[in-house]
Amino acid sequence: MIKPREEIVNIVPYIPGRPIEDVQREYGLEHVIKLASNENPLGTSEVVKKALIDYINGGINIYPDGNATNLKEKLSKKLNLQPNNFLITNGGDESLSLVAEAYLNPTDEVILSELTFPRYTDSSTIMGAKINVVPMKNLNYDLNAICENINSNTKLIWICNPNNPTGTLLTEKEITDFLDTVPEDILVIYDEAYIEFADSEDAPKNAYLLFQKYPNVLTVKTFSKIYGLAGLRVGYLTGQPEIIENINKVRGPFNCNVLGQIAAINALDDEDFLKKVYDNNIEGKKYLYKVFEELNISYTKSQTNHIFFEAPSMNSKTLFEKMQKKGVIIRPFPGNYVRVSIGTKDENEEFAKVLKEVIQEN
Amino acid sequence: MIKPREEIVNIVPYIPGRPIEDVQREYGLEHVIKLASNENPLGTSEVVKKALIDYINGGINIYPDGNATNLKEKLSKKLNLQPNNFLITNGGDESLSLVAEAYLNPTDEVILSELTFPRYTDSSTIMGAKINVVPMKNLNYDLNAICENINSNTKLIWICNPNNPTGTLLTEKEITDFLDTVPEDILVIYDEAYIEFADSEDAPKNAYLLFQKYPNVLTVKTFSKIYGLAGLRVGYLTGQPEIIENINKVRGPFNCNVLGQIAAINALDDEDFLKKVYDNNIEGKKYLYKVFEELNISYTKSQTNHIFFEAPSMNSKTLFEKMQKKGVIIRPFPGNYVRVSIGTKDENEEFAKVLKEVIQEN
Repeated sequence: MIKPREEIVNIVPYIPGRPIEDVQREYGLEHVIKLASNENPLGTSEVVKKALIDYINGGINIYPDGNATNLKEKLSKKLNLQPNNFLITNGGDESLSLVAEAYLNPTDEVILSELTFPRYTDSSTIMGAKINVVPMKNLNYDLNAICENINSNTKLIWICNPNNPTGTLLTEKEITDFLDTVPEDILVIYDEAYIEFADSEDAPKNAYLLFQKYPNVLTVKTFSKIYGLAGLRVGYLTGQPEIIENINKVRGPFNCNVLGQIAAINALDDEDFLKKVYDNNIEGKKYLYKVFEELNISYTKSQTNHIFFEAPSMNSKTLFEKMQKKGVIIRPFPGNYVRVSIGTKDENEEFAKVLKEVIQEN
Repeated sequence: MIKPREEIVNIVPYIPGRPIEDVQREYGLEHVIKLASNENPLGTSEVVKKALIDYINGGINIYPDGNATNLKEKLSKKLNLQPNNFLITNGGDESLSLVAEAYLNPTDEVILSELTFPRYTDSSTIMGAKINVVPMKNLNYDLNAICENINSNTKLIWICNPNNPTGTLLTEKEITDFLDTVPEDILVIYDEAYIEFADSEDAPKNAYLLFQKYPNVLTVKTFSKIYGLAGLRVGYLTGQPEIIENINKVRGPFNCNVLGQIAAINALDDEDFLKKVYDNNIEGKKYLYKVFEELNISYTKSQTNHIFFEAPSMNSKTLFEKMQKKGVIIRPFPGNYVRVSIGTKDENEEFAKVLKEVIQEN
């Protein structure tokens, strides 16, 4: 047996959710809805689809532009930055792993919060860094506790805001107060995959510019959520050119596929689609809040496209299984929590109906 | 300044070839052909394009199946293997970097050949392994020298067969003799990205099965070459389930985009397209051999879709620049070598015409 690196031996590979077709087959269901992966319930912009169809005859046999020149130019104009402030990646996921690959040594420590996006742990573990998990406070990041945990080995702090899976928000003031405190030789990876769904006035604005005041910050953005491109894998980092350039050294030469690049360029302009997705999310959120209140289910107010709630009078895995049998896939979490993605009006109603049935049958 | 990992400091990020449009603009050219990246000159199968267009309305907002269930099943049937013998990656490139991430420690050494695919070096360097570069013999891998270089720190040997950029082939017998000699605690990464273009009877057959006799071998395959899907980024590894599973631990959960997966599934069946691409390559190869002979240019017989030749009476970079100004992009290499991808009939003729002009004007 050839030994793999010690650092990876205990990593449990991600177990993907089952395809809808599998669930349909197993339970003999005609109709199954998946509210488990925080995907865009309205699909993808028609403008994007048209651009993709136009391009498919135009050269998918040719390697993608590894430098993603056109996408970076588009983003530069849109966000008033320079192309060298961007690193385009194979989904936001790859932004995280490339940061870890470029910066984390086995002697380094990273700080992250409990109940946050699991790829922070995995990306850090792969590079051998020590993980320091800080407990939450009211299902939100405890930034004071994070600061207290900083020591001379701390190299990087992972922040997800608003947070997945809890949906909670750190305000602009909380974030800037925190960044004022963090020593500038510690990288802060600020992941705002869900920020476009936030409706709080206190939400950080233009956090992709944070690096201009705090050069140790990298902001992670994704096209998988409000832009509806999860299947195509496009995300990016904004940051200081020096840091971006270091991360670029570990990037594969053709990491972001050509259709992803074209989709992202076109998705940025379809403001109507983005507004529709945002409005649908706000309405769905209000509706689901009511449902939870009616059912006396404890839930957390969300600034994202998903809601975190406590499984009512049963284990969260049991609730997940019972609902799956009835054609609604949600995501169970430890601590008896469940996350549901906000769907279309019909999907939300179906979720509510099935949730009620399962509670009644219990 | 926040320090990146020492291992990556000296990595020179890949400098991508310039987009055709750039070259057109700079030199005021209407028509530019690119024979620099070993892409498929016949494009992509119509069957694939149709499948992609059908799918674009079907859910690019949904995350790809991270397990690539359908593609692995398709490959299993086609190659008479089990799904757990496959790891699907974001192009063959990612297969290489994931192997390195899973297996290479800073105390390990890897062996590779001079004049081979540069990602072997980069992927190994990122993980801190020591690189042992073995000189070639007649522009081909010197397997005896590689064996002689094995020491107690050797963890991994990178093999590209047929080789990029030289186009040379190691025969089936040479490969199996070599694998009989390599200690079984050393990983051999056998990359056969170009094997589908080989016309030698001595070429290894079904090398994706090598792991069955040699459990320390992983075979790298790609959809970027004969299948014409370079833009979509799909490649894979075949190997022992235990090794595949270890590499799977460092794979991002959604590394291969959904359109890439669909394209690959459909590309496997279009035998007519594959035959056309193969035949075009054989004809183009013969034609280009003649051109080189006519011009007294020293070239290497190729078992791939590209030909390696010596720049005639000038520096290879000069030849590259002069040809680029005339609208033909090729790839210069150190040692005064140049690589040209075999194109369509028209492209090959254009290459020959411009090459002659440049030589005459010299």
